[in-house]
Amino acid sequence: MAVDYQSLAVKGVQALSPYQPGKPIDELARELGLEPSDIIKLASNENPLGPSEKALAAARSALSDLCLYPDGNGYELKRALSERYGVGMDQITLGNGSNDVLEVITRCFADTESEVVFSQYAFAVYPLVTQAIGARGVCVPARDWGHDLDAMADAITERTRLVFVANPNNPTGTVHTAAAIEAFLAKVPERVLVVLDEAYCEYLTGDDSPDGVRLLSRFPNLIVCRTFSKAWGLAALRVGYSLSSPDIADILNRVRQPFNVDSVALAAATAVLADEAYLERSREVNAAGLKQLAEGFDRMGLKYIPSAGNFIAVEVGDQAAAVYQTLLQHGVIVRPVAGYGMPRHLRVSVGLPHQNDRFLDALAEALTAGGEGG
Amino acid sequence: MAVDYQSLAVKGVQALSPYQPGKPIDELARELGLEPSDIIKLASNENPLGPSEKALAAARSALSDLCLYPDGNGYELKRALSERYGVGMDQITLGNGSNDVLEVITRCFADTESEVVFSQYAFAVYPLVTQAIGARGVCVPARDWGHDLDAMADAITERTRLVFVANPNNPTGTVHTAAAIEAFLAKVPERVLVVLDEAYCEYLTGDDSPDGVRLLSRFPNLIVCRTFSKAWGLAALRVGYSLSSPDIADILNRVRQPFNVDSVALAAATAVLADEAYLERSREVNAAGLKQLAEGFDRMGLKYIPSAGNFIAVEVGDQAAAVYQTLLQHGVIVRPVAGYGMPRHLRVSVGLPHQNDRFLDALAEALTAGGEGG
Repeated sequence: MAVDYQSLAVKGVQALSPYQPGKPIDELARELGLEPSDIIKLASNENPLGPSEKALAAARSALSDLCLYPDGNGYELKRALSERYGVGMDQITLGNGSNDVLEVITRCFADTESEVVFSQYAFAVYPLVTQAIGARGVCVPARDWGHDLDAMADAITERTRLVFVANPNNPTGTVHTAAAIEAFLAKVPERVLVVLDEAYCEYLTGDDSPDGVRLLSRFPNLIVCRTFSKAWGLAALRVGYSLSSPDIADILNRVRQPFNVDSVALAAATAVLADEAYLERSREVNAAGLKQLAEGFDRMGLKYIPSAGNFIAVEVGDQAAAVYQTLLQHGVIVRPVAGYGMPRHLRVSVGLPHQNDRFLDALAEALTAGGEGG
Repeated sequence: MAVDYQSLAVKGVQALSPYQPGKPIDELARELGLEPSDIIKLASNENPLGPSEKALAAARSALSDLCLYPDGNGYELKRALSERYGVGMDQITLGNGSNDVLEVITRCFADTESEVVFSQYAFAVYPLVTQAIGARGVCVPARDWGHDLDAMADAITERTRLVFVANPNNPTGTVHTAAAIEAFLAKVPERVLVVLDEAYCEYLTGDDSPDGVRLLSRFPNLIVCRTFSKAWGLAALRVGYSLSSPDIADILNRVRQPFNVDSVALAAATAVLADEAYLERSREVNAAGLKQLAEGFDRMGLKYIPSAGNFIAVEVGDQAAAVYQTLLQHGVIVRPVAGYGMPRHLRVSVGLPHQNDRFLDALAEALTAGGEGG
């Protein structure tokens, strides 16, 4: 009798549905017979600016060494991060995107006996990595589309090993103040690790913005995760990192793969940290785009969730799936969020002004065609 | 009382020592105040040729899209692999180096109740990934520095979920014939997965070379792992893959991170597969270098393990650690293999002719200085 290999997989994996990424441009081009250049993708919260020239130059120069393994310790990048954020190099764990760091943290500290707490409507990777190791995910109902931090603190039990907090949150764009994050951390027992996912924090401005790095010295159970995929514009290269106590970083570094960040990625990320002008431009383009999209939604009478990220979740109604498909036909890729329990919303990433316009026009057409008004 | 975060890690991780990669050139340059260009690294079985021009051109052109996430499905690379090896695209699982694939396989199919079988003197990542998930590693004594396949088959119990076989093996360079591998597979129960790690297979030539791909249709429990880091010359970019039944690939693809191979890596790997001349040159340079090194060892009266890979383990005697250090002082990085239970050996990767010469000269000096003759 043939062996059923699915049944040989560990329990958590058997029940796993993989992460659904935004549809790639080339894939849609193949499906519709379109030119890739005719398609705009506002589906993966990517930076619409194109890469930093400094990052690009560093990446180009790293190509000469393609035959050599990357520096497994990521010395130069860690040194640059250390200087920028005033942390020790021994507090840093590099990842193949912050996804990698989130997974490594979970595998280090949770097992089949553990509970892992996260919020409804939070980043899909939290339940996925929890499920993959067979831990119990505890999904706490959201409040106003954002994390209900009080309820999350209350959900902690003796078995809880990790709590994931996304700030700002994806896909809803909600954000908690620095004071709220601090008050939450003060309530969490020290034996429970809090993973503060700040993938979108570079879009926050102002001295009183929430900033996990400032809290590291006071909360030894805090792990701050960040990425180069959003405001820094390097999603193609997969670089993320966590900042934590050296003790925790030591554990994470045992489990991460020795060459999890490649040479081109290390070079580009190190270089972009010195490109403050690029970051500033990313913020400006994003703030203007958020305003442009919000005004467009207002004109159409559509509700949306005010966002602190580089995307907006807009409520298009019961026909969201059909609207998504119609947008695809127009060569506009956005992100369905039914998988997040938000079947009436679509998430659109902030693009350049002409991309936002094209999306808004296509959306207006799609809603008219579908007879939907919101 | 302060929390001891080390003690909060899962059991397997607590006891884990991370993989020790070859010393990076820049690190040695910093330590000794040398110029990186004065150092040669023969420590990580890298391709000494420098990258394929086709790979380089593809990598360069992929840099324009640094802001966009990679194609998580790796469509183009899978299509190229599928054509080259005559397998279905649904049989392929891409990894961030084959290290990633080895880890994903282990996490998918083994847990704390499982046993995982591998050979003494085999690739360090097998026991590491086994340990990280808390499974029991069963290390089978080697025969003549190679896998004792009969003993490995005998070591399989009811609890065995995975067997790792490296062919050729690293760090010893031993290889089993196609017939031996086939006979081994015929003895393994179908419910036990055999991971045939062929990281160095591109260096084998001849029609009767062992080739796991030919065996896939007959052994549904076979997973063949390969890499672009060796003969294909792309270690910096981290691309590996496995070939298996579609059922097994489906499971592995649920657990691998959605963007585990970056855009530059996907482009370069796809392009290099079409550069048959580069592969041929890699083989020629390697065959000549193996001969050059072996002759050098013969002249010095040193024993070495005949190798089918792009490296040789040479026996330098009790002072191997001191010889390694002396070589570093000469700006020559090789690999100590005491961690593999081979304290009298050093592993040297095949370099270009002048690099091999420089290593042999430095080795002769180091052995004279240390009073060691073999």
